[in-house]
Amino acid sequence: MTDLMRDEVFVAFSTYSLIVITKLMIMAPITAHYRFSRGAFANEEDVGHKPTEERKKMLRTHPDVERVCRCHLNDLENVVPFVLVGLLYALSGPELPAALLHFRIFAGSRIFHTISYIGAFPQPCRALSFLVGVAATVSMAYNVLSKVLIL
Amino acid sequence: MTDLMRDEVFVAFSTYSLIVITKLMIMAPITAHYRFSRGAFANEEDVGHKPTEERKKMLRTHPDVERVCRCHLNDLENVVPFVLVGLLYALSGPELPAALLHFRIFAGSRIFHTISYIGAFPQPCRALSFLVGVAATVSMAYNVLSKVLIL
Amino acid sequence: MTDLMRDEVFVAFSTYSLIVITKLMIMAPITAHYRFSRGAFANEEDVGHKPTEERKKMLRTHPDVERVCRCHLNDLENVVPFVLVGLLYALSGPELPAALLHFRIFAGSRIFHTISYIGAFPQPCRALSFLVGVAATVSMAYNVLSKVLIL
Repeated sequence: MTDLMRDEVFVAFSTYSLIVITKLMIMAPITAHYRFSRGAFANEEDVGHKPTEERKKMLRTHPDVERVCRCHLNDLENVVPFVLVGLLYALSGPELPAALLHFRIFAGSRIFHTISYIGAFPQPCRALSFLVGVAATVSMAYNVLSKVLIL
Repeated sequence: MTDLMRDEVFVAFSTYSLIVITKLMIMAPITAHYRFSRGAFANEEDVGHKPTEERKKMLRTHPDVERVCRCHLNDLENVVPFVLVGLLYALSGPELPAALLHFRIFAGSRIFHTISYIGAFPQPCRALSFLVGVAATVSMAYNVLSKVLIL
Repeated sequence: MTDLMRDEVFVAFSTYSLIVITKLMIMAPITAHYRFSRGAFANEEDVGHKPTEERKKMLRTHPDVERVCRCHLNDLENVVPFVLVGLLYALSGPELPAALLHFRIFAGSRIFHTISYIGAFPQPCRALSFLVGVAATVSMAYNVLSKVLIL
């Protein structure tokens, strides 16, 4: 094992990164579930085994599928920056409790974000969970830049 | 060179990451090729040099362009998690043969995924190549978490 | 602080990565701004506080919102590969001036890309800024692979 993986903060970072990346990847089977249950597909070959008259009907968009796709994209736009910024943050030597606080808040906010998005919870549920996640990432970025900076 | 780049597993990780990231980035010129050959553009300024009557006709979507865009997005959704999880996996000290197996399976599955997607191969070509790639990433994530975990 | 964060090239990489990731994340409030100013929302719960007759009118797409979304996605497709390739490049021990050149060109090109995209500058402004960014990323990838390679 490399030295990095003996560092507590780095291990905490790895754990929470894997949690949020797994959450991101789970959006794919959720999308598949909605595509099948709503009968809304994007590609001709995906409905190739159906009778011809049914095929055209199934090549369509559905609000629920589009919702889960937007949620997936929003995850990409937020989880990936978190992991990249978190990596630099973990390497910049923060205290373990401060680091854990950032990682837990982010992971919690994104899990709640997905639930609010897919469940169409009334606003500001989704907006707030989104903002809390952004705040955690921005706080880590600020932390790194306040320690090291070469322009 | 840093110590990490003297580690065989890390070098293998770097090699395969660069291969799949390059594959991801190649989707951009492929999209451009389809936009030009199909005459389907998204932005007014992209058709600004054409005669006025032609412009409106070219500001449209085309199934082939949308297909390649979906393929590009699917790559983002899978290649980026692979590289992020793979980084943690490479740092967790796996055996070189096991690591190479993961990396090669993932890279192969994604190259085949792109070919199946753009070529509209009958299912389950695309679905299987997608699932094989996901399995490689999930296996690496599981491997890391089974070694180190701080919640 | 870890040893990596004492390495000048790695600190420069961290600085520029955080700059371009921040730029990527700023696309979210810009999208929100366009959604509110153009009155074009994607989710029913986002317009839940409006009178019923207004709601349906606001659940629509708007060219300006779609433009900023395309810009956001293009950023994801380019900034994330830059950071991932740049990480490996920074670890491969380049000279500081060469590394800074790559990082600055990329950061500059992406900032100009966003301005050209949102401002709908005449082509080839956006195309060139996109290509310059890609060139910086590809050059770093080539650099790494020319030093280390295990297939």
